[in-house]
Amino acid sequence: MAFGETARARRSALGLTQRQLDARMGYRGKFSGGVERGVRNLTLDNLYLLAAALQTDPRDLLDGT
Amino acid sequence: MAFGETARARRSALGLTQRQLDARMGYRGKFSGGVERGVRNLTLDNLYLLAAALQTDPRDLLDGT
Repeated sequence: MAFGETARARRSALGLTQRQLDARMGYRGKFSGGVERGVRNLTLDNLYLLAAALQTDPRDLLDGT
Repeated sequence: MAFGETARARRSALGLTQRQLDARMGYRGKFSGGVERGVRNLTLDNLYLLAAALQTDPRDLLDGT
């Protein structure tokens, strides 16, 4: 599953809107939308931040090879 | 172990220099040095590229939480 889809599934499982997830990360919006659409090539720091906001291990957001 | 240290250990295990690793990624140098020193906040795309060059699963380069 693509990174964005994995992040969206996890967000939905937590019952969060994108805006609520962005707020958890300290962003004012439009961050997780780009991630979920697969158009944001996020950095490692933001990967850890997103994983914490999604209460998951960052490795679980990544596809293996 | 910090991301940079993990990447360095994997590179050393493969017997590669930083320059050789950079070349595998299609970079002409100074990429993996910054990653290993922990001063490069690499993107997701580069994380996958680095993992492929290090012949490892990208999840194995990440710390858990």
